Amino acid sequence: MSHNKFVTLTIEPYGIKSEFEKGACLLDALKAVGLKIRSECGGRGICGKCRVILKDSSKISEVTKSERERLSKFELDSGLRLACCSSVMQSTTAFIPEESRAIIRKFLIEGTEKPVTVEPAIRKFYVKLGKPSLSDVRSDVQRLLDSLKDVYGLEIIRVDYQLSKSLPEILRKAKWKVTATIWDDSEIISVEPGDTSKKAYGIAIDIGTSKILGYLSNLINGDLIAVGSLENPQIIHGEDVISRISFASQGEGSLRRMQKLTVEGINVVVRQVCKKSRCAPRHIYEMTVVGNTAMHHLFLGIQPKYLGTSPYVPVVSDAIDVKAKELSIRVNPSANVHVLPVIAGFVGADAIADIISTGIYKSSQLSLVLDIGTNTEIILGDKRGMVACSCASGPAFEGAHIACGTKAVSGAIERLQIEPESFEVKYQTVGNTKPVGICGSGIIDGVANLLRCQLIDRKGIFVEQTPTPRVRTRNGEREFVLVFQKEGATRDIVITPKDIEQIQLAKAAIYAGCSILMKKKRVQPENIKRMFVAGAFGNYINLDNAKLIGMLPDVSTKNIRFVGNAAGAGVRMALISRRYSRKASLIRSKIRYVELASDPDFQTEFTSAMFFPNKDLRRFPSFRIDF
Amino acid sequence: MSHNKFVTLTIEPYGIKSEFEKGACLLDALKAVGLKIRSECGGRGICGKCRVILKDSSKISEVTKSERERLSKFELDSGLRLACCSSVMQSTTAFIPEESRAIIRKFLIEGTEKPVTVEPAIRKFYVKLGKPSLSDVRSDVQRLLDSLKDVYGLEIIRVDYQLSKSLPEILRKAKWKVTATIWDDSEIISVEPGDTSKKAYGIAIDIGTSKILGYLSNLINGDLIAVGSLENPQIIHGEDVISRISFASQGEGSLRRMQKLTVEGINVVVRQVCKKSRCAPRHIYEMTVVGNTAMHHLFLGIQPKYLGTSPYVPVVSDAIDVKAKELSIRVNPSANVHVLPVIAGFVGADAIADIISTGIYKSSQLSLVLDIGTNTEIILGDKRGMVACSCASGPAFEGAHIACGTKAVSGAIERLQIEPESFEVKYQTVGNTKPVGICGSGIIDGVANLLRCQLIDRKGIFVEQTPTPRVRTRNGEREFVLVFQKEGATRDIVITPKDIEQIQLAKAAIYAGCSILMKKKRVQPENIKRMFVAGAFGNYINLDNAKLIGMLPDVSTKNIRFVGNAAGAGVRMALISRRYSRKASLIRSKIRYVELASDPDFQTEFTSAMFFPNKDLRRFPSFRIDF
Repeated sequence: MSHNKFVTLTIEPYGIKSEFEKGACLLDALKAVGLKIRSECGGRGICGKCRVILKDSSKISEVTKSERERLSKFELDSGLRLACCSSVMQSTTAFIPEESRAIIRKFLIEGTEKPVTVEPAIRKFYVKLGKPSLSDVRSDVQRLLDSLKDVYGLEIIRVDYQLSKSLPEILRKAKWKVTATIWDDSEIISVEPGDTSKKAYGIAIDIGTSKILGYLSNLINGDLIAVGSLENPQIIHGEDVISRISFASQGEGSLRRMQKLTVEGINVVVRQVCKKSRCAPRHIYEMTVVGNTAMHHLFLGIQPKYLGTSPYVPVVSDAIDVKAKELSIRVNPSANVHVLPVIAGFVGADAIADIISTGIYKSSQLSLVLDIGTNTEIILGDKRGMVACSCASGPAFEGAHIACGTKAVSGAIERLQIEPESFEVKYQTVGNTKPVGICGSGIIDGVANLLRCQLIDRKGIFVEQTPTPRVRTRNGEREFVLVFQKEGATRDIVITPKDIEQIQLAKAAIYAGCSILMKKKRVQPENIKRMFVAGAFGNYINLDNAKLIGMLPDVSTKNIRFVGNAAGAGVRMALISRRYSRKASLIRSKIRYVELASDPDFQTEFTSAMFFPNKDLRRFPSFRIDF
Repeated sequence: MSHNKFVTLTIEPYGIKSEFEKGACLLDALKAVGLKIRSECGGRGICGKCRVILKDSSKISEVTKSERERLSKFELDSGLRLACCSSVMQSTTAFIPEESRAIIRKFLIEGTEKPVTVEPAIRKFYVKLGKPSLSDVRSDVQRLLDSLKDVYGLEIIRVDYQLSKSLPEILRKAKWKVTATIWDDSEIISVEPGDTSKKAYGIAIDIGTSKILGYLSNLINGDLIAVGSLENPQIIHGEDVISRISFASQGEGSLRRMQKLTVEGINVVVRQVCKKSRCAPRHIYEMTVVGNTAMHHLFLGIQPKYLGTSPYVPVVSDAIDVKAKELSIRVNPSANVHVLPVIAGFVGADAIADIISTGIYKSSQLSLVLDIGTNTEIILGDKRGMVACSCASGPAFEGAHIACGTKAVSGAIERLQIEPESFEVKYQTVGNTKPVGICGSGIIDGVANLLRCQLIDRKGIFVEQTPTPRVRTRNGEREFVLVFQKEGATRDIVITPKDIEQIQLAKAAIYAGCSILMKKKRVQPENIKRMFVAGAFGNYINLDNAKLIGMLPDVSTKNIRFVGNAAGAGVRMALISRRYSRKASLIRSKIRYVELASDPDFQTEFTSAMFFPNKDLRRFPSFRIDF
């Protein structure tokens, strides 16, 4: 199949064969078939990164001056060429060596691998500048900008003003050999003596109400290098978001105190990851931050007062870029801190990160994301548009407000099963140690089993006849004893009517939120093709039990995925790829926020969701858990 | 001349008649004939500023919904329409009322009026926002941005982060009625309660080595409201630029001290002009700054050390924008401080301002600008390109290093003439008071007259035979007595050989600089169509005398203009019109800097310029000055 005007290019190691017009630029051809090739200079023959090996160099246009300057004679003889300088004249085969391929990092989102091209907001470039002389009196800044343009084809438009102050000393001490860090292809944020181009780090921060998590990443290859975490130091002013908002609302001083606590917490996490990885904090040039809207405001020192009262409006919802020094974050002082946008008062930047990592904004399949926590964020939609809401699911799933509740610490009952005949209890504790209490996933199992064994009715009330000594009466109220002290527990571990009610309130809130969103989208649970359950706690819950008690909509189990800290994954993706941080604003514009408090149907939905659903319990025959 | 497809529009009060296609948009038509019409919304029928009065409204398209919302019934009945909403259907006459015309401010550059359209970098807009509710939960920032877009068609992209912190309180206290200040059409820098849209001020600052000048301007109509000035407080660390550079070079502390002195000086000038005009400093939202390169660096806290040693390179040469608070300038803290670009180590932002105000960058006539001071900046060129240099002309023209020299204070001899026969001296002093000394313009006259009367030769040496008792010998050297104490002076006022030498050095430096630039451009003095002499001192010099002693190239006197503080005029133009501040970078790129120190011809030119030129003194017959 030879044609005068067309040539066939075979691209290895991909085995791609494609036709091009004779004389086509090789770099353009590689891009046309969807390959990502390094090309820092944008195809101008300057950076020398788009190296390819030709099977037969004679099928390609003549070697150019640029190539002779950037490739050794040995390399040229071996068939090495720069793709941007080569035109394909006859059919041939090109091999793309590893080093010329743009770096793709695979993200493990609980079993789903997401390939993310490494293209962070910052890049580092080593340059040697010409010394000033009477015949070359350009300013220090101009000299640096010109060199970056000449060597790498970079069109930088500005230099951080504070940096320009220290520039003369740096350049002269470094004998005019320096490494510049460029942010957003437009601003030089740092200049260091010598070649430090390999030391380019960034950190993704997820400010949770309870924990601050930090992910240190190598911004050259996207590697995750170290993870740090710390209990959110704001906790001394209240466990939940509302009490922190009300503390910060007391005045300028309280707000500043909360901001300081948050920043100090982040600085501790930065020190942790730097220590683990022996990375110098000054080599961290980019920080990407998510958190719920209250955390977002407190971190930035923005008054969150109005988040706490109807109509719960945030002050800022757009993405924000601030210099690290302006926030007293102890990384490189000129590092950019990029805070992802928030959606509404109670749907924050973390929800944006959930959407990024689950990819629902670009899927044609209708998807539901639940990020379960004290507040549960729910997003329903696909690439055409999304609706989102937040519901106050309370801290029951974290073991709070539950008689024997505990966090998922060692000894917490995390899974359990009540035998239908004997009412004996099988359970598993965290770390397989002596049971000390019950955590969120355990309490869901417990309530579901009480229901399945018909010890409680659809209203959650203990039935009259309970043919087991495990149901007993204490202080005039009945309760179910999961483990007696004599059975080896540190105390009698029970489920009380109050516990059941707490779970009912929590699950009703989530279910009603899902229902309202489904109504807005006019869809049924069976239309939902993918459901993502996020949140630290999510991973351990038994899906059938969660559906049995009516906590989750009745989406087919095979369509449900636990995605753990999806917000953490999303913020890491936004850190190593600008594409995602840029997408965040676009994503936000595709989301319609639904304020449940003003929805006329919410109260009805919530009240009816307080009941356990009227399910055919025989549909759950293999109810057993494999211990 | 009626044609089906064309209509004639007569535009009053300009008396312009022009043909347009039938159905042409009236606003476009007005723009097409070169009129500047207000149109904040860009012709979208939103701002209601492009009001015109039609002689016969029936010749225009139907009244639109936008017009009905923005014009009263009375106004519509009177023929008032919005130009952007009107299509011209039949020939008619439109009258442009005063309030619809873009404001043009005339700049008086010493007799030359320069019209400058008032279009500052900041604009203020009053808006009423809708209150948040459960059905409208947009963030405070979004709400403000949306309102500015809806009412004025503004597409703002960001809000100063620090400002967003105080936004919630401002909006709520102001009951959602606020005035926003927009910088560069892209950033909200201030939000104030109520309607303060009329209070929009800016200040232009000219940091001279000896004086700091400030020009407070109303940014709505471009009016100059108050002028302030202060001796540059840096003076305690040296009179000239070099000694200040060397003080600042001693270390970080000295540099910071110099910056602080400069900023404090500017703050004093700000207080002066605010007091004079009763303007609140917080209503100053823009500051435009020029100065020579050393002043530029010291003001910004940039180390000027390398300006002081060969090859004299600046650290930064591009324009810089910094927030006022970052520099501790006491105007609105979020005000933008715009520092114009510099050309080279000894050709600063003030030279850029000279070029702006003289307009040589856009003239097709070859022009020469001399900004005379301790350093004299020289620019030669036209719109196709310019060359610039700086020469060390020394402080002689300011009366320094001259035996009886003084600044142009009361009693300083500023003009004088020596009678050729009698050698009697006629003179004029500043303020017509008793002579106390001689200032720059006087000493030029003196030397020129000594030469003309042949009391000194071309080398500047007193001739053997001097038939007048005014030439006497003191301490072994001859000198000329301008005024004996007995003639009414406070002392004998003399011109010494050292004085003559000082003037020779100064004028030779200027002349050699001009010669080198003319060589670079391959032009002769007669090719120079316009010569601008700037600098405080320039205004008073006698041109014929200056040419006689060879200080200025022999450009025809009718082509020479004194333009006084041209840099001050230029920085004011850049303040009032962004067009000029933007042009500054373009201007800079059109200038080729010539380093005299490295020019092989400079030393020869300089040495030969030390001699007084061999002019036919009869060419200067009417040498008399009218006192």
